[in-house]
Amino acid sequence: MNYSSKLLENAVNELARLPGIGRKTALRLALHLIRQEAQNVESFSKAILAMRNEIKRCNTCHNISDNEVCDICSNQKRDQSLVCVVQDIRDVMAIENTNQYTGLYHVLGGIISPIDGIGPDDLKIESLINKVAEGYIKEVILALPTTIEGDTTNFYLSRKLSDYSLALSTIARGIAIGDDIEFTDEITLGRSIINRVPFSEKG
Amino acid sequence: MNYSSKLLENAVNELARLPGIGRKTALRLALHLIRQEAQNVESFSKAILAMRNEIKRCNTCHNISDNEVCDICSNQKRDQSLVCVVQDIRDVMAIENTNQYTGLYHVLGGIISPIDGIGPDDLKIESLINKVAEGYIKEVILALPTTIEGDTTNFYLSRKLSDYSLALSTIARGIAIGDDIEFTDEITLGRSIINRVPFSEKG
Repeated sequence: MNYSSKLLENAVNELARLPGIGRKTALRLALHLIRQEAQNVESFSKAILAMRNEIKRCNTCHNISDNEVCDICSNQKRDQSLVCVVQDIRDVMAIENTNQYTGLYHVLGGIISPIDGIGPDDLKIESLINKVAEGYIKEVILALPTTIEGDTTNFYLSRKLSDYSLALSTIARGIAIGDDIEFTDEITLGRSIINRVPFSEKG
Repeated sequence: MNYSSKLLENAVNELARLPGIGRKTALRLALHLIRQEAQNVESFSKAILAMRNEIKRCNTCHNISDNEVCDICSNQKRDQSLVCVVQDIRDVMAIENTNQYTGLYHVLGGIISPIDGIGPDDLKIESLINKVAEGYIKEVILALPTTIEGDTTNFYLSRKLSDYSLALSTIARGIAIGDDIEFTDEITLGRSIINRVPFSEKG
């Protein structure tokens, strides 16, 4: 491609390094940025740099945070005896958006996946065990993906946590609200029958 | 959305302002950037800022350039008597990529479109007329889109240029190389018959 400008070419190369952004899209984004006010492009550029250089990981739950301890862990109104184990910070956001959970989180930073070379030592498992060993935690909820890797990680964690007296649970799997029963895959449908819950008028 | 970090939220907001990037994609890009080396994110950020602040428009053809006069206009090996009029700098890149054109360009910066409020005065038409008035240009090729707006602009330019003795042409429209005749729309097929060219073994 002939860019007629080294500055444009550099910017396109950088944008095209982003995941899911090809060279044509990168060019469209670059030409869009050229047309913007200088101060807008400066705040764009600064926001990204500040995020990369100043963002921290929470000391206790490993969630992304602006401080050493994140807002969730430091919130005394939350149930400090309940910990939900998730793969990624995006899962924290998704659960927070439900407004249904008032406990704390623990972000593993991945799941055990031998095919990708990810073993237990690559994940934040030791700090979870240490947290549990302090004795304040009454329940650990496993909210990992329903894949072989997720199941492996669940199994590994359940073995590691079996020495401590606490309740261990996983989030409910079943038919999504609004979904038709006839179109549900048989594994999900089968599990939703096995794990049926007592009828309640609240739904 | 609960971002658990103001720095992350700012970066996502900025990324989501880019055309075609929604909030979910912006979050994915932001998390990707957090995982990159600090120096890579710095060069990303710098390249975009440098492009916005230092890029110029060529004085004569209005193409994007690092200098006052672009590499194409200042290249004495190119045919200075031939000018191809295009809508956008992306069209310059596309034609340059063919390696078939050795003349100069003139980037209008748009086409006449009353519905979008774009009139002749919003485009770089006057500087084209001034360039032609100098008397060195022998042919002007119109390479604008085949839309009502493109045709309007072609007509407007042809009237403006009719006072000068020069050849005026448009790029050939026809069936793309490799396309099937039976699947070509009737307007293109009709035009390709009217504008048929003498058979040559070179194709």
